[in-house]
Amino acid sequence: MDIGDDKMSNAPRRPGRHFLQIPGPTPVPERVLSAMSRQMLDHRGADFQKLGKSVLSGIKTIFKTTGPVIIYPSSGTGAWEAALTNTLSPGDRVLMVETGQFAVLWKQMADRLGLRAEVIQTDWRIGADPAEIEEHLRRDTDRLIKAVCVVHNETSSGCMTPLEEIRRALDAADHPALFMTDTISGLGTADLRHDEWGIDVTVSGSQKGMMLPPGLSFTAVSEKALAASRTAKLARSYFSWDDMLSNNANGFFPYTPATGLLYGLDEAIKLLHEEGLDNVFARHARLGAATRAAVRTWGLEINCRDPKYYSQAVTTVLVPEGHNADALRALALDTFDISLGTGLNKLATKAFRIGHLGDTNDLTVMGALTGVEMSLELAGIPHKKGGVQAAMAVITDSMNKSPRAEAA
Amino acid sequence: MDIGDDKMSNAPRRPGRHFLQIPGPTPVPERVLSAMSRQMLDHRGADFQKLGKSVLSGIKTIFKTTGPVIIYPSSGTGAWEAALTNTLSPGDRVLMVETGQFAVLWKQMADRLGLRAEVIQTDWRIGADPAEIEEHLRRDTDRLIKAVCVVHNETSSGCMTPLEEIRRALDAADHPALFMTDTISGLGTADLRHDEWGIDVTVSGSQKGMMLPPGLSFTAVSEKALAASRTAKLARSYFSWDDMLSNNANGFFPYTPATGLLYGLDEAIKLLHEEGLDNVFARHARLGAATRAAVRTWGLEINCRDPKYYSQAVTTVLVPEGHNADALRALALDTFDISLGTGLNKLATKAFRIGHLGDTNDLTVMGALTGVEMSLELAGIPHKKGGVQAAMAVITDSMNKSPRAEAA
Amino acid sequence: MDIGDDKMSNAPRRPGRHFLQIPGPTPVPERVLSAMSRQMLDHRGADFQKLGKSVLSGIKTIFKTTGPVIIYPSSGTGAWEAALTNTLSPGDRVLMVETGQFAVLWKQMADRLGLRAEVIQTDWRIGADPAEIEEHLRRDTDRLIKAVCVVHNETSSGCMTPLEEIRRALDAADHPALFMTDTISGLGTADLRHDEWGIDVTVSGSQKGMMLPPGLSFTAVSEKALAASRTAKLARSYFSWDDMLSNNANGFFPYTPATGLLYGLDEAIKLLHEEGLDNVFARHARLGAATRAAVRTWGLEINCRDPKYYSQAVTTVLVPEGHNADALRALALDTFDISLGTGLNKLATKAFRIGHLGDTNDLTVMGALTGVEMSLELAGIPHKKGGVQAAMAVITDSMNKSPRAEAA
Amino acid sequence: MDIGDDKMSNAPRRPGRHFLQIPGPTPVPERVLSAMSRQMLDHRGADFQKLGKSVLSGIKTIFKTTGPVIIYPSSGTGAWEAALTNTLSPGDRVLMVETGQFAVLWKQMADRLGLRAEVIQTDWRIGADPAEIEEHLRRDTDRLIKAVCVVHNETSSGCMTPLEEIRRALDAADHPALFMTDTISGLGTADLRHDEWGIDVTVSGSQKGMMLPPGLSFTAVSEKALAASRTAKLARSYFSWDDMLSNNANGFFPYTPATGLLYGLDEAIKLLHEEGLDNVFARHARLGAATRAAVRTWGLEINCRDPKYYSQAVTTVLVPEGHNADALRALALDTFDISLGTGLNKLATKAFRIGHLGDTNDLTVMGALTGVEMSLELAGIPHKKGGVQAAMAVITDSMNKSPRAEAA
Repeated sequence: MDIGDDKMSNAPRRPGRHFLQIPGPTPVPERVLSAMSRQMLDHRGADFQKLGKSVLSGIKTIFKTTGPVIIYPSSGTGAWEAALTNTLSPGDRVLMVETGQFAVLWKQMADRLGLRAEVIQTDWRIGADPAEIEEHLRRDTDRLIKAVCVVHNETSSGCMTPLEEIRRALDAADHPALFMTDTISGLGTADLRHDEWGIDVTVSGSQKGMMLPPGLSFTAVSEKALAASRTAKLARSYFSWDDMLSNNANGFFPYTPATGLLYGLDEAIKLLHEEGLDNVFARHARLGAATRAAVRTWGLEINCRDPKYYSQAVTTVLVPEGHNADALRALALDTFDISLGTGLNKLATKAFRIGHLGDTNDLTVMGALTGVEMSLELAGIPHKKGGVQAAMAVITDSMNKSPRAEAA
Repeated sequence: MDIGDDKMSNAPRRPGRHFLQIPGPTPVPERVLSAMSRQMLDHRGADFQKLGKSVLSGIKTIFKTTGPVIIYPSSGTGAWEAALTNTLSPGDRVLMVETGQFAVLWKQMADRLGLRAEVIQTDWRIGADPAEIEEHLRRDTDRLIKAVCVVHNETSSGCMTPLEEIRRALDAADHPALFMTDTISGLGTADLRHDEWGIDVTVSGSQKGMMLPPGLSFTAVSEKALAASRTAKLARSYFSWDDMLSNNANGFFPYTPATGLLYGLDEAIKLLHEEGLDNVFARHARLGAATRAAVRTWGLEINCRDPKYYSQAVTTVLVPEGHNADALRALALDTFDISLGTGLNKLATKAFRIGHLGDTNDLTVMGALTGVEMSLELAGIPHKKGGVQAAMAVITDSMNKSPRAEAA
Repeated sequence: MDIGDDKMSNAPRRPGRHFLQIPGPTPVPERVLSAMSRQMLDHRGADFQKLGKSVLSGIKTIFKTTGPVIIYPSSGTGAWEAALTNTLSPGDRVLMVETGQFAVLWKQMADRLGLRAEVIQTDWRIGADPAEIEEHLRRDTDRLIKAVCVVHNETSSGCMTPLEEIRRALDAADHPALFMTDTISGLGTADLRHDEWGIDVTVSGSQKGMMLPPGLSFTAVSEKALAASRTAKLARSYFSWDDMLSNNANGFFPYTPATGLLYGLDEAIKLLHEEGLDNVFARHARLGAATRAAVRTWGLEINCRDPKYYSQAVTTVLVPEGHNADALRALALDTFDISLGTGLNKLATKAFRIGHLGDTNDLTVMGALTGVEMSLELAGIPHKKGGVQAAMAVITDSMNKSPRAEAA
Repeated sequence: MDIGDDKMSNAPRRPGRHFLQIPGPTPVPERVLSAMSRQMLDHRGADFQKLGKSVLSGIKTIFKTTGPVIIYPSSGTGAWEAALTNTLSPGDRVLMVETGQFAVLWKQMADRLGLRAEVIQTDWRIGADPAEIEEHLRRDTDRLIKAVCVVHNETSSGCMTPLEEIRRALDAADHPALFMTDTISGLGTADLRHDEWGIDVTVSGSQKGMMLPPGLSFTAVSEKALAASRTAKLARSYFSWDDMLSNNANGFFPYTPATGLLYGLDEAIKLLHEEGLDNVFARHARLGAATRAAVRTWGLEINCRDPKYYSQAVTTVLVPEGHNADALRALALDTFDISLGTGLNKLATKAFRIGHLGDTNDLTVMGALTGVEMSLELAGIPHKKGGVQAAMAVITDSMNKSPRAEAA
């Protein structure tokens, strides 16, 4: 052995913590990982029942509903299917707004399931416009549209839709359609009031603001949606609400639940309340504002072109013409061990995304922003320095005043 | 503080390891729990791709197939739905065998999805009889039956069906129906040869012989099934094979996969091969034989009435008339911290189940059997002592000869 | 790939849980492992201080003392050194009782440190005899003996000494010597009353009844011992009590404490009180009685020859002449994945030890006993069957009456 | 339930990852935590032996020695005691250099153990000066000094001593004294060549560059030190090298080792070699340079006043007169969840310390620096902005050239 040199090195290990700055899956808190490493138990026994009741009751407080929230062992995509198949019948019309890639995918699912989707287009740089929805619904004088489907936080575009305004649009049009929303990356990052905002089906997933690994989806269901499910004719079995609700009444599930993830969910709900939901949302707002301040200072363009729709979970950043966002991402990953979100579909190679959601904090996001600023430098992408400095100013300013006091 | 007595005790903590002897979920090995406690990663990045390829390739070796095995974030029930909706059209006839509660549930799903199920009844005390299936298929001269659905290991009854004989029955009847099987509690406990046995769709789950928490399902698919999926008309989206297969080709998934469970799956596959699949099966066979020896010595009745169908994963035990199996289970849980499986449906209160599957070994099952024997004593259920002694004899005998050398 | 056979097996993996039946280290409970997997923190900060105060206060309730208990990052051996060096001066006489190998080692340490040990011999088959100690002390008319050192539970011999009787012996002899005891494998398995029994220095470790990994030692100190430490002249620094006590007053330590183990200790103390110390001791008593019943039925000899001294933590078993205990242990480990304790020093190859202490329960110990009974069979060691049966009877009998109702 | 507001919040939970920027304990890598959560095993069995041999052999590669490295269950302080008591006799003279608080503590230990320490003073703002040591040794014409004790990396002052120059000083003086060094916070952060640099006893701990929880210490021993131990007369037992070395020869230990930490050590050694020791050192050098660039830009003073002695593990920063470093630390902890090191002894309230060692990386340290810069702002401590910007420049510059190319 030549003991003076290290001859044993064989692989590029990456020291320290990976910066997972994609808009989900997000980092899982230590306490949640720990909860999930408990051994399995009898899913028909009293200990499980206690857990089942705890998560089924606790998840309601996150959706701000007194009605049922169904927990599937599935990705969020499964909950989309549950929302549609439990409430609609073949050939039903649904109004959708193409706010980005996830709206596109939900629309494709509607097609597959035999629904007729009417789509309001956007340029993927804003959220859903309440006025357009209202206008569209007013034109539907025969009330053929059975549901309005809106993505709350479009993870691809970095645009968030104010759902309470969509509710008002339905009311203004006096339209009886069900109001369905996907808040997969919204829940736990921004306020969501299922009952107060009159949402009929709210769909979410475990791996974003809920700080869990992927594998669970959530569906909050209104009385009106439940009523619709009694006559809806789309085929469904795994995602049927009826069996779920009757079993859930006692804390159980109609098929084997994802025990480990439920352990984690129970702890994640506790964590959100320990911090306080309002504090959680304020934190996300502050981190979003800081990130946007950095992007503006760099002279790059924020994809979301109207401050009204700024997402507080993810910022989609456009790179200058002639530069490849994926090359930048690859350099950042390789050099600084930071994962940034890729541009999706029409934004591919044109944009990258900075996730600032879930179990994160000021210094982690600031560290991430230094990673982006240094990567811009190393990649030779034209930009002005000082983005991190600007972001720090947003943070320190927010320590004394409202984090939302942001000049767009 | 009165330091001489313990005034601080406040709750009935249970010391030591819980004996989880239900037929799944089964105990998760330490290495799998450890793998699952890794942090999340970018599910669109190269590190994930490596993981995706590894599990998608590895799971094939467990099903003994060269074709695709689809991994859903769902319970096994979801994979049942995938099997039916991807291959069949509304109104199609399927032949099912009611071997027990899980066959009943699969049949109910077929009904819900608009299929017409023809059911061969059993008394829930044997597996599926190849001769009956052959006869039934021969009578189907118009070849209206599109699929034969058989549960490999009936978790409720403790009966296992020899699938290779079912294949031969289809061949003997020269019937073109697809052959589908549910091996949710069979995979990883008994041999399963998807390709060699000519199975078209084999469905399983993570929480039994695969030694993982629940939350993943597996579907092995033959060429013939794939061909059927191109014309099958049942509605499907979440469970569609096409998107899965096209994304899986590169190690990715069409929607966010259950990363944490995939970490665990990768490790579980390694564990099975480190032990050697044949050793895994021999171990389960030995533990099943030992358990049955104990039951016989106690003078209790094994629900499975034909040794040909003995399950090596679970033994369903009938309690004498006038005694309640659930009362026995409650006493055992309360006194010895052991979870036994409950009798399902028509076996409710009449039977309990001893799981001897997954990440377990001789001394754990022997400890469990002492728990059952002592509980029989404390519950006042008539029985003869010596069951554990008989089980020990099976184990020590098996150390020198084939564990299958069992006089029924 | 020949998919019909498992060509990938490469290593002898052992399925299921290892049966760790040595008398320590003992299995670590899941909640303790989980607590120990928390990240590090600032050992000079407020969060640590809270932890420090909690463990320093909590550990007193286990020793049943209102005085200080010092926690060293060291094995129990280190606490032996602390006991001697903090209270004694070079050339001081100490009275020790050679109850087994650990008494031998403590005596060797006394020699090394320049003390003069007077040793009462035993045949390693009983504990320390109070009458002999009293007599020895009475003969010390010049009061030259400065300390009496007794091992509470001799882990090598399986003999436990009733410490309250030793206290009475000192009192009867009206001797001023300090009373020191090693309860490394006694603490948390049998009652220990540092204050009530007038012990001056009680020494223990983390890896036995405290259910932690090894790496921490504990030293409970009386006022009298503290007074002695002010004039004691043996050299000490790492193990000095003074710095420890002054730092501990605020929840801190004079050098970096073993944070991870302290996380675990905090949880372990909670677990002991959740079960209730009296329940913990009754459980150990029951498991000891069951084990000895098995040994007697097998016709093997229990090393401890006087029931008065039976250990409820470990049973040392003599194998018949002409048989090798280590060969039996190797066979048991290889065949059944059970670790039994080796015979130490003069008991080497003649005895093996069954640990029934720490985070364990009835079925685990019963499983272990089946492992021993089957190994005796496979090893060809003459014995009678029925040991496990006899142990079961002890357990079921104890469910209605006192577990100590044992005819020796 | 008023479901519109979060009434359940009860405690100030801190989201995201804590920034543990003290100079040790350092964050423990996920793989090490995972390794440490394995169950206990028989410390006298073959599996343990394999582990013992692996760590005893592996740790040598970190110290760059072919001789023995002893692993104690103790803090680093225990290894100091081992170094002194195994090689020296009462009244022996040792030469020490007071480079900071840890040198002070080692000297106090020498006093306690009955040694006579001759101390070279510093102002705590440089490391040990080789010329002064040489001169001091030359004056010792009677060769009464038996050992020269130097702290490699003074964790309190942020000064590192070039040990190879100290070796040359001994050689130049032709002095036979043993050369002992404390590299508790140096090992795994900067190069250390026990053999090549002719060190006789090198002492370290687990909780700094080794990335483990505290609880283990390491002592590398030269042939010359071993020879000295045969005649050294200081009392020792727990820390005796002889028993350790004879037991270690077979992979075992003379008393119960800290199994859990050894699991972690085995993994930590692997991690260091996977990254490559030279890469580990370059990373620490780069992070030190970036940190100092920030400090200079802020206009604060680096405690280490001579670039020759810059530590690459920790930077000690002086706050301006009239400001309290501990108030700054408290604000940073409270506002940004970052732990900075406190000023010790004469640096109390005057300095804080930024740890940039162990399992860390560029973005983590950059995030930490934003935390310091924002805290300076919020605390009203006079400083210039731009520190983080300057640090980023150091990092990006270093991506193309040597990280040591730093103008002090």
